[in-house]
Amino acid sequence: MAEREAKKIRAYGVTIGQLPAGEKNDITDVADVRVGHVTIKRELEGDQEYACTGVTAILPHGGSLFREKVTAASYVINGFGKTTGLVQVNELGVLESPIMLTNTFSVPAVTQGTLQYMLDGHEEIGDTTGTINIVVGECNDSHLNSIRRCVVQPEDAMEAIRKATNGPVVEGAVGAGTGMVAFGYKGGIGSSSRIVSGEDVSYTVGVLVLSNFGSKNEFLIDKLFRGKESALPAVDKPTDGSIILVLATDAPLSDRQLLRVAKRTGIGLGRTGSHFSHGSGDIVIAFSTAHKIAHKSEQMAETRTQLREDHSVMNQLFAAAAEAAEEAIYNSISQAETTTGRRGNTVHAFPFETYI
Amino acid sequence: MAEREAKKIRAYGVTIGQLPAGEKNDITDVADVRVGHVTIKRELEGDQEYACTGVTAILPHGGSLFREKVTAASYVINGFGKTTGLVQVNELGVLESPIMLTNTFSVPAVTQGTLQYMLDGHEEIGDTTGTINIVVGECNDSHLNSIRRCVVQPEDAMEAIRKATNGPVVEGAVGAGTGMVAFGYKGGIGSSSRIVSGEDVSYTVGVLVLSNFGSKNEFLIDKLFRGKESALPAVDKPTDGSIILVLATDAPLSDRQLLRVAKRTGIGLGRTGSHFSHGSGDIVIAFSTAHKIAHKSEQMAETRTQLREDHSVMNQLFAAAAEAAEEAIYNSISQAETTTGRRGNTVHAFPFETYI
Amino acid sequence: MAEREAKKIRAYGVTIGQLPAGEKNDITDVADVRVGHVTIKRELEGDQEYACTGVTAILPHGGSLFREKVTAASYVINGFGKTTGLVQVNELGVLESPIMLTNTFSVPAVTQGTLQYMLDGHEEIGDTTGTINIVVGECNDSHLNSIRRCVVQPEDAMEAIRKATNGPVVEGAVGAGTGMVAFGYKGGIGSSSRIVSGEDVSYTVGVLVLSNFGSKNEFLIDKLFRGKESALPAVDKPTDGSIILVLATDAPLSDRQLLRVAKRTGIGLGRTGSHFSHGSGDIVIAFSTAHKIAHKSEQMAETRTQLREDHSVMNQLFAAAAEAAEEAIYNSISQAETTTGRRGNTVHAFPFETYI
Amino acid sequence: MAEREAKKIRAYGVTIGQLPAGEKNDITDVADVRVGHVTIKRELEGDQEYACTGVTAILPHGGSLFREKVTAASYVINGFGKTTGLVQVNELGVLESPIMLTNTFSVPAVTQGTLQYMLDGHEEIGDTTGTINIVVGECNDSHLNSIRRCVVQPEDAMEAIRKATNGPVVEGAVGAGTGMVAFGYKGGIGSSSRIVSGEDVSYTVGVLVLSNFGSKNEFLIDKLFRGKESALPAVDKPTDGSIILVLATDAPLSDRQLLRVAKRTGIGLGRTGSHFSHGSGDIVIAFSTAHKIAHKSEQMAETRTQLREDHSVMNQLFAAAAEAAEEAIYNSISQAETTTGRRGNTVHAFPFETYI
Repeated sequence: MAEREAKKIRAYGVTIGQLPAGEKNDITDVADVRVGHVTIKRELEGDQEYACTGVTAILPHGGSLFREKVTAASYVINGFGKTTGLVQVNELGVLESPIMLTNTFSVPAVTQGTLQYMLDGHEEIGDTTGTINIVVGECNDSHLNSIRRCVVQPEDAMEAIRKATNGPVVEGAVGAGTGMVAFGYKGGIGSSSRIVSGEDVSYTVGVLVLSNFGSKNEFLIDKLFRGKESALPAVDKPTDGSIILVLATDAPLSDRQLLRVAKRTGIGLGRTGSHFSHGSGDIVIAFSTAHKIAHKSEQMAETRTQLREDHSVMNQLFAAAAEAAEEAIYNSISQAETTTGRRGNTVHAFPFETYI
Repeated sequence: MAEREAKKIRAYGVTIGQLPAGEKNDITDVADVRVGHVTIKRELEGDQEYACTGVTAILPHGGSLFREKVTAASYVINGFGKTTGLVQVNELGVLESPIMLTNTFSVPAVTQGTLQYMLDGHEEIGDTTGTINIVVGECNDSHLNSIRRCVVQPEDAMEAIRKATNGPVVEGAVGAGTGMVAFGYKGGIGSSSRIVSGEDVSYTVGVLVLSNFGSKNEFLIDKLFRGKESALPAVDKPTDGSIILVLATDAPLSDRQLLRVAKRTGIGLGRTGSHFSHGSGDIVIAFSTAHKIAHKSEQMAETRTQLREDHSVMNQLFAAAAEAAEEAIYNSISQAETTTGRRGNTVHAFPFETYI
Repeated sequence: MAEREAKKIRAYGVTIGQLPAGEKNDITDVADVRVGHVTIKRELEGDQEYACTGVTAILPHGGSLFREKVTAASYVINGFGKTTGLVQVNELGVLESPIMLTNTFSVPAVTQGTLQYMLDGHEEIGDTTGTINIVVGECNDSHLNSIRRCVVQPEDAMEAIRKATNGPVVEGAVGAGTGMVAFGYKGGIGSSSRIVSGEDVSYTVGVLVLSNFGSKNEFLIDKLFRGKESALPAVDKPTDGSIILVLATDAPLSDRQLLRVAKRTGIGLGRTGSHFSHGSGDIVIAFSTAHKIAHKSEQMAETRTQLREDHSVMNQLFAAAAEAAEEAIYNSISQAETTTGRRGNTVHAFPFETYI
Repeated sequence: MAEREAKKIRAYGVTIGQLPAGEKNDITDVADVRVGHVTIKRELEGDQEYACTGVTAILPHGGSLFREKVTAASYVINGFGKTTGLVQVNELGVLESPIMLTNTFSVPAVTQGTLQYMLDGHEEIGDTTGTINIVVGECNDSHLNSIRRCVVQPEDAMEAIRKATNGPVVEGAVGAGTGMVAFGYKGGIGSSSRIVSGEDVSYTVGVLVLSNFGSKNEFLIDKLFRGKESALPAVDKPTDGSIILVLATDAPLSDRQLLRVAKRTGIGLGRTGSHFSHGSGDIVIAFSTAHKIAHKSEQMAETRTQLREDHSVMNQLFAAAAEAAEEAIYNSISQAETTTGRRGNTVHAFPFETYI
């Protein structure tokens, strides 16, 4: 059987939710948000050892993220995970670095590389001003990747940042998603967006996921297709795994409001079939690009615009977070191709074609 | 058109999830858990003022809840609500009173009545020992009920406690659910349960909801029925509202574990169509009957049994919480009858018969 | 021995911290903040039963608190307590009612009375708009007060609100503090304030406490006086009890920033000798009067001013919260007079005169 | 002036609190807890660049921390910090790695080294079982250390672990504390312990701190000595900085109970003069050695012993946490010697001798 063509799930006639998607149906529909990948696939020395992993960088904007921070929030849906950098995001409500994604054991290397990238571009950090907080999320790709070999290098993180663009997001088995498995089929990177209409103004919500969770029997894909079950084998893995959800918006939200929006991505995750398994690190990192917050300022006070929560736009943002998260997960699967890695393990692309 | 017969949604051929329900498919499938209602419906003085409200009591067991406490946890899905008693549940991980449900403005009267009930039965409280923590959840039933009149009396709470039994839960427009509205149709009290199989042992998870949330256009009921839309009018209310979810289990869980299970009810809520609206108080209160914890003991330490989280039973409990919550919400709607209240407002029973 | 004169601890030559106090050294130094008390002391029927309790109301401003809400935050230092209303404060970051204080079992009556007060003044609540969130804090005064008798009535709450003024706070054994015990001596209501200097502008931080915690041997009063221990008997009570700390400021802070400031009151509490005992409900409720937030607005977005946290004013606000909380606790003791209540129990005024 | 001899603050006649210290007055009084340091001091290439930093490892016991986990909790007093590993500790309530301390920019290298150490000793991790959660705390030592040079290597972390012993803790300017500054004087590593007496049994609470916070004018040392102020210059640094507090106990506590104990270390921190400054990462990591929790087990359930919280032992544990934290901070200063580092910056030992 010829491998199906990788495409977004909308190409199969599936629509998730009620709100319209943005032009690219990607997190990069939020103006100036950038995404970059480094994909690592190569044989390693040893018995069927294989590198099948990578790094993904999400940049809130194209300027200095340290000197022009953005409002941020994080939410732990289920905390069996090793994401780093959340303590400071929670305390201060700002993000001052790219959000990086990789495999579990490469968090140190990616943190190091991202730190080095920021130090190289900012001679004041750790010298005439304070330090910097780096945010790195992760999933465990050890089914396909020889994770104990820690092949990702700090330079890979720097390259992912440098390659980041505002173009369409490359999805599927790419970057940090190279070795990930979702619902027993190939997962990885997926993205989606929604447009929310306020009075006289519209806002964009974008979600990018790194999907690596779920067992085949949990997958609620049938509710979308009402088709017959595929004969293709799913990976017989326990349901445990992880998902990192990155949410971007240009809506002017305070950190508390952004946290409320971030939590709604869990609705989308639940609608795909997940039960937030015990062994899963299901973590949301959200930011708003509406304000750029200077690292230093002469002014003691500053004004910020934020939405009133009693207008309908807030509930629309909630729905947008849920819808974009759900669709991003499906896209991470529909865009991923069959992949063979460590120990000859093969994870199949989900056979969407059997549903058509 | 003749009013449809109120029944559980299973009677319409709908199955939610994969786990088997308990015998009654009610929270009372958890041994010794008791539920009682007081329903209040009467005309009030004034222009079309009407009492359409009530009280519901959930008792973890039939003994003294103060002297034999149970492990408990609470989780705020969205906090636009006035539930009382959660501070102490969160700090200590125990419940020492019935869980009471009523309308928003009757929380004081119901707290007072429950307190009086417990004082009457325990002369030591506030005398030779400390005080007692009462837990009362609420939703706003002002579409059908003249909520400003505060008709619920402390005695109503006491009666609901006294009437509580381990039998099948009376669902729909009853007790605290009398005046509630869900997805623009009549909601209120609903319940469901699931059986989880460990090795050599099985556990029961039961959920009871007080549903009062959602707008018609959010309702994902079509995913269940694939039927045509009803011609019956839904209430044109904003999406805001609330839901209280009470979860009971006989599985031996620590308070931290119970919190993890409680959080998964939000998955079920999301699957019905809710986006945890801004104006909604979506709150979970969970307890485990596996241990009774003495108010006083000579012994400085005690042993407790708790499940290992890496065995599959934990993930089954997570799925059970999601499934029972989702089905309890549907039951709160399928069991509720068309109700007319304040200002002549009518809220229709959901026309399930149009889907058959 | 003649009873000592009740006065603030500064009258004994004690200075707490480094920041200057406001003019009144009271929470009412924050412009327009109002405090009112109702004190209840009378014999009750029965064997040595005695009402020795009351209600205290703190109003963020003199207008409609529902129509012009203020930014708020709450923090649970230790959660063995029955404070109500925090769920919504935490979710939305606003306060829309007076903050009420009373004894543990009178929370329902005081909530009811405060609700009625707000309903009387706002015919839209629960009719054409949503409901209202009432915040009531409490301590257990059962050593002096026949708490099981629930003597406080809803009308007492309404009266405390009506009596509230921006004048000097009446401290000690008054209002909700009438029957409270701190460190084995008479406690109750105490207040203090601090002035913080920003660039070109100064802000006020005020704290009001209801003190009812601590055992005599924990009390670090000796660090202030270096005097000899008093021969006066302290109450032989366990260390458990509670303290409610209400913090007001006119500094423009977001809810997140206000939470950070609120947490620092725990520093002051710890410096008095408290270890946040197991059985203590140690709870902080904070608000900023810098913005009035309309209940309804045509505008979808609004601008708010907030302090930059990297300027020194933020750390000064932190210190102010700690200093004012510590001094307010001492004032609650130095202003309290020897009180005899239920069962003939007498709690002595702390013998500050022995330290002079 | 001859440099004073480094010694614990008790040697100056100062006693903190009321509970007795353990034999060593160190965290290693908790049986089998181990501490190891690697100190790095050397000139670097460049203009007055200097490595003045290190690594400290705290091991809950001498066996496999992965296969025999311990109960754990973490608490963020103030979150301006980059500590990693807390997400999973919070979710699961267990610790499965050494707790590592270092400078802010060396968190990646130390995480990497600790991960490698654990991988080397456990071939199942990331192969036949899941991954592992590494906990690393940090402070910013850039006043004395050329932190941008990232001199700490993964091997340094491995060596600190290998060197860990149950003997007296080496304190002061050592390990991760080499370049730290507290209250404008030399700080770093300090430790203290307390013995708590239950009925028929006693428990030990030990605290180890990495101190790097506070400005000279905040320091409440005068309350201990009532001496004259020193003429020695303190560093003119802003109050910002950080402190990591590691708490160990052999008392049988659930994760929720351990969190309650951990929070009380903030009382001790506040008593030294800290106001939990804006720019400070003040973070507590606590563990109990009472139970060893197997990574895998055939048994679906397990029993645990935990203390009843209403017995006096719980309040004693709270006091012990506060007292040991306060004293550990003083010890980190009294044991630290004058240190010169980067740019020729000198930080003086606190002149305790002027108080004698």
